[in-house]
Amino acid sequence: MKLSIERGTLLKAVSQAQSVVERRNTIPILANVLIEAEGDSVHFRATDLDIEVVDKAPAQVERAGATTVSAVTLHEIVRKLPDGALVTLADDGTSGRLTVEAGRSNFNLATLPKEDFPVMASSEYASNFSAPAPVLRRLFDKSKFAISTEETRYYLNGVYMHVAEAEGGKVLRCVATDGHRLARIDADLPEGAADMAGVIVPRKTVGELRKLLEDDDMKIAVSVSETKIRFATPDITLTSKVIDGTFPDYTRVIPTGNTRKMEVDAAEFARAVDRVATVSSERSRAVKLSLDEDRLILSVNAPDSGAAEEELAVAYGDERLEIGFNAKYLLEIASQVDRENAVFLFNSAGDPTLMREGNDTSAVYVVMPMRV
Amino acid sequence: MKLSIERGTLLKAVSQAQSVVERRNTIPILANVLIEAEGDSVHFRATDLDIEVVDKAPAQVERAGATTVSAVTLHEIVRKLPDGALVTLADDGTSGRLTVEAGRSNFNLATLPKEDFPVMASSEYASNFSAPAPVLRRLFDKSKFAISTEETRYYLNGVYMHVAEAEGGKVLRCVATDGHRLARIDADLPEGAADMAGVIVPRKTVGELRKLLEDDDMKIAVSVSETKIRFATPDITLTSKVIDGTFPDYTRVIPTGNTRKMEVDAAEFARAVDRVATVSSERSRAVKLSLDEDRLILSVNAPDSGAAEEELAVAYGDERLEIGFNAKYLLEIASQVDRENAVFLFNSAGDPTLMREGNDTSAVYVVMPMRV
Repeated sequence: MKLSIERGTLLKAVSQAQSVVERRNTIPILANVLIEAEGDSVHFRATDLDIEVVDKAPAQVERAGATTVSAVTLHEIVRKLPDGALVTLADDGTSGRLTVEAGRSNFNLATLPKEDFPVMASSEYASNFSAPAPVLRRLFDKSKFAISTEETRYYLNGVYMHVAEAEGGKVLRCVATDGHRLARIDADLPEGAADMAGVIVPRKTVGELRKLLEDDDMKIAVSVSETKIRFATPDITLTSKVIDGTFPDYTRVIPTGNTRKMEVDAAEFARAVDRVATVSSERSRAVKLSLDEDRLILSVNAPDSGAAEEELAVAYGDERLEIGFNAKYLLEIASQVDRENAVFLFNSAGDPTLMREGNDTSAVYVVMPMRV
Repeated sequence: MKLSIERGTLLKAVSQAQSVVERRNTIPILANVLIEAEGDSVHFRATDLDIEVVDKAPAQVERAGATTVSAVTLHEIVRKLPDGALVTLADDGTSGRLTVEAGRSNFNLATLPKEDFPVMASSEYASNFSAPAPVLRRLFDKSKFAISTEETRYYLNGVYMHVAEAEGGKVLRCVATDGHRLARIDADLPEGAADMAGVIVPRKTVGELRKLLEDDDMKIAVSVSETKIRFATPDITLTSKVIDGTFPDYTRVIPTGNTRKMEVDAAEFARAVDRVATVSSERSRAVKLSLDEDRLILSVNAPDSGAAEEELAVAYGDERLEIGFNAKYLLEIASQVDRENAVFLFNSAGDPTLMREGNDTSAVYVVMPMRV
């Protein structure tokens, strides 16, 4: 194998590969990236056995071939090379070494046989559709904060993507919850997605996917089977196993009878919550919301360290209500609001509370109260 | 006590206080800042028993008085208040609480009695002089990287500031070393400093001092006794115990007979060292320098992961030399060079190497070689 490639192009391809690779591996070849050169392009493939990413980049291929080399070391080297450099990758197929040359720099890296690299088995995908990058970004960005980190509840360790029935018909929906809060985000159903099986996309896949979604003009090809999901741009293909489990029936958790409505400037609300939470100790970060006619008082009482109170002007016309929440959860849902005021719908102090942006029901959050 | 103070002014004063305070304290009051209001100003005092910092800030004092409150909590609150807010601090002297008010925010913090706050005993300072902030900044910034972190060699856990004899007469000198590398930085002797006792300024003090030295136009008043050092601006006074120990005779370590001279662009050299070091494992980051007529080859050989080599054009006229160094040490000294080329003076592969900036002997670095 021998090829030349522009440093910036190489860096982009290798960045994604090294991020999929797990830092601690008991299987040495999983630390490596598989480099395959043929025609006028080169493929960089990396995997952790659950996720596989393949980046395709244009290159001048002088001699076709393939080898594997440490993803992290290659990435570090390319990162440190001067911008604009032309990088040559070459192996003679016998020495077990890959040379990396750029200007007066010369590197010689240990390789492992390409035959040992675990390429993910190809699958049949029952559903194939495409969605604009901003649509997928919104679905996952607004739901991922609620993913559970409890390993015993593995079926909550991801975002549940499925087709659901909403007011206006079928939608593509992402849901995540950890039992304390829940996010439910809807998007128009893309053509060809109606029969898609519901899948739980693992947390790490959601993170890797995010890098494919930077370009607003990009259409992402999505393929779904019962065991795998694939996201592809013309240059990058990300394939991931989905979580083998049943996502709980979240619809029962979303309150429908909450009628006490409070409307508040989301940014102002978040800043006030953050301020009053300062006095509380790390463990019991409970914030009390006291609601009265168009007035919200946020308060925290931490006997050891002190107390805090802040008043906010809100739109509220129902009867007096006192309800407590974990400060972190309130901050997280408030920070999802990017366009309009936050609308909270309460029932009693013991019932789950619903939040949405203005009258938009395509992004709905639920948060459990805390006794204060 | 009752006073009003502008949020930005308060934030600056409290920032320095909370940074001196140790995060983990067995003595509760050491987590607090002592607030003393009188006349038209307020003093914020914090200590870890080794360092004491006092910040003075203008305030409208309605009722003189003093109390102590958690430095970290107060800092967090002030940080989160909106810019430009007017903050009122008040205690009634009996409730054991300090109220912090700004706009519609209201905080109520636990206090501890001001009488329990350990104020550092005042001392006689034998030497008093003043030095421009940029001079002190250079002395400490260029030497602190070489401070030892080995607690058993406590006398190396700081920067040795003293008066020394240099070529052009007496100088104010800072030296730090960890046995592997050494930095020796000289500045013109300020008036009144000639009789100063040599003192070892602890690492944490060097860090805290740095914040006093941001303003280029500032003159810093320095006071030195055998046990303490004090740095003062009109608003901030930083007092620190010095390390009770004898700094070793560093002059014996600085080679005087090194004649093999190499001159190299410092930034280019640092980037090349960084690149070739990529292939080596964390532990033995040894870089080999191979010198020949106006040519330097940097190389690293890590049998497990690979090898790297880079050639640099340098000015070198002596005989061939091969010498190895710890890559981190080379990078650190090369990054001290800010104006001119780096000049290395070698002896043999087993002897300490000297580095300076151009022909400037007021900043000299020594680094021990490594066998490669």
